[in-house]
Amino acid sequence: MNRLEMPATSGASAAHAARLRIRSGEWAHHTSGLADHHVQGNLVILPKALADDFLLFCQRNPKPCPLLAVGEPGNPRLPSLGADLDIRSDVPRYRVWRQGEVVDEPTDISAIWQSDFVSFVLGCSFSFEQALMECGLALRHVQEGKNVAMYRTNVQTAPAGPFGGQMVVSMRPMTPQAAIRAVQITSRFPSVHGAPIHIGHPEQIGIHDLAQPDYGDAVDVLPDELPVFWACGVTPQSALLQAKPDLCITHSPGCMLVTDLLNHQLAAF
Amino acid sequence: MNRLEMPATSGASAAHAARLRIRSGEWAHHTSGLADHHVQGNLVILPKALADDFLLFCQRNPKPCPLLAVGEPGNPRLPSLGADLDIRSDVPRYRVWRQGEVVDEPTDISAIWQSDFVSFVLGCSFSFEQALMECGLALRHVQEGKNVAMYRTNVQTAPAGPFGGQMVVSMRPMTPQAAIRAVQITSRFPSVHGAPIHIGHPEQIGIHDLAQPDYGDAVDVLPDELPVFWACGVTPQSALLQAKPDLCITHSPGCMLVTDLLNHQLAAF
Repeated sequence: MNRLEMPATSGASAAHAARLRIRSGEWAHHTSGLADHHVQGNLVILPKALADDFLLFCQRNPKPCPLLAVGEPGNPRLPSLGADLDIRSDVPRYRVWRQGEVVDEPTDISAIWQSDFVSFVLGCSFSFEQALMECGLALRHVQEGKNVAMYRTNVQTAPAGPFGGQMVVSMRPMTPQAAIRAVQITSRFPSVHGAPIHIGHPEQIGIHDLAQPDYGDAVDVLPDELPVFWACGVTPQSALLQAKPDLCITHSPGCMLVTDLLNHQLAAF
Repeated sequence: MNRLEMPATSGASAAHAARLRIRSGEWAHHTSGLADHHVQGNLVILPKALADDFLLFCQRNPKPCPLLAVGEPGNPRLPSLGADLDIRSDVPRYRVWRQGEVVDEPTDISAIWQSDFVSFVLGCSFSFEQALMECGLALRHVQEGKNVAMYRTNVQTAPAGPFGGQMVVSMRPMTPQAAIRAVQITSRFPSVHGAPIHIGHPEQIGIHDLAQPDYGDAVDVLPDELPVFWACGVTPQSALLQAKPDLCITHSPGCMLVTDLLNHQLAAF
């Protein structure tokens, strides 16, 4: 059996079990810790008229917008992420946006599904954080039970159609030795943000106070540490807010798509 | 033809041509720039009685002491580095050490070769520097025509027999983005020192003034840069000086062994 195909066709996986609970409506909460060896993804659904520009935006900005899968217009299936996956029901909670405003947070979008909807699933930092922790690197925000600190930068994304704006980054403080190791580890995972985009001089990317993140929670950077910055999945969300499409559906924060892919399968080498 | 074997068996390589000139005595100078796509190595020759401890020292400290080849006692051939290579004549200039003092700097050691001599060839930073420059990263010491800045650290090597002491590192200033790329590039080359051992907090490894290197030449570290530190091949030389063997032969500084291996062949992935 092809190793890459195995989890996606295995009906017995922890991810599949989690998805069944989510699909039935039994689980409508955060997915953190759910099927934790499996890849979780950020969801963006756009009408076809905007989807081509969004696809181009992701292509031009692969570090903040790493695509795991893109669906066919109107087709709610994403078989590369799960044989039975149905994007209309398999996310615990959705956000429905109209002109940049959240108008609903349903647990199922079957009733509003359109024949021109294109689904985008983007990699998220949960996967590389698991790889870092498996290699013995402690993550302060995890230890302290916080959300990771995120910052708007002065780094411009490469625009496409109405999508553009500044890159958002997440920051994890590390000793120099851990930072070097973290570059090695996360370089193996280009489909979940890959290597850091910056180390050590936050002012160079427009961050002037690490104690005041734009999203998430602040954590201390100790005197013997360096702040290490990764491109963040909030970047495409920020681009969506700026573009204000007539209609757009995303996951609700923390309520991710649990896929059958294993985190280890994403390793590029 | 096996790609790995090709250069070592090709009599037409630039490295082979360089070695013939060296062997004949025509070239008794620095090898910098000679056959510059080929791996150059540091040389240590020890009597068998000490060679086992030195081999163990290298095994325990692979970042400063990456072994490219070890010869059989009394055998001057190192066929994995060059089919016709003769370690008695193929280095432009040698240093003969007795009790830690240089007693001679000949261009050929055939006359003093012993049946118990074991040759060690260690990888050197020339190879990873070439990889960095091929990827578009500028190296300040190269631009300024200087030797790289090197520093004794407070990092202890793992001792073996009489060999031990502190790790010596080389330092290259880089922007944060270049430093991240440099970690990726040099991680591919474990046999020529591999990834950096430190970034950004020199005082943590016992370096208190970057302007005063212990070996080589100082270069500026600009305000938007980070100092990036790699384990350095001066470490085993320093361990030899400390051990003061009755007899030892090394290359003369800058006069390296030119091997038939291509730098690119050393890439681990």
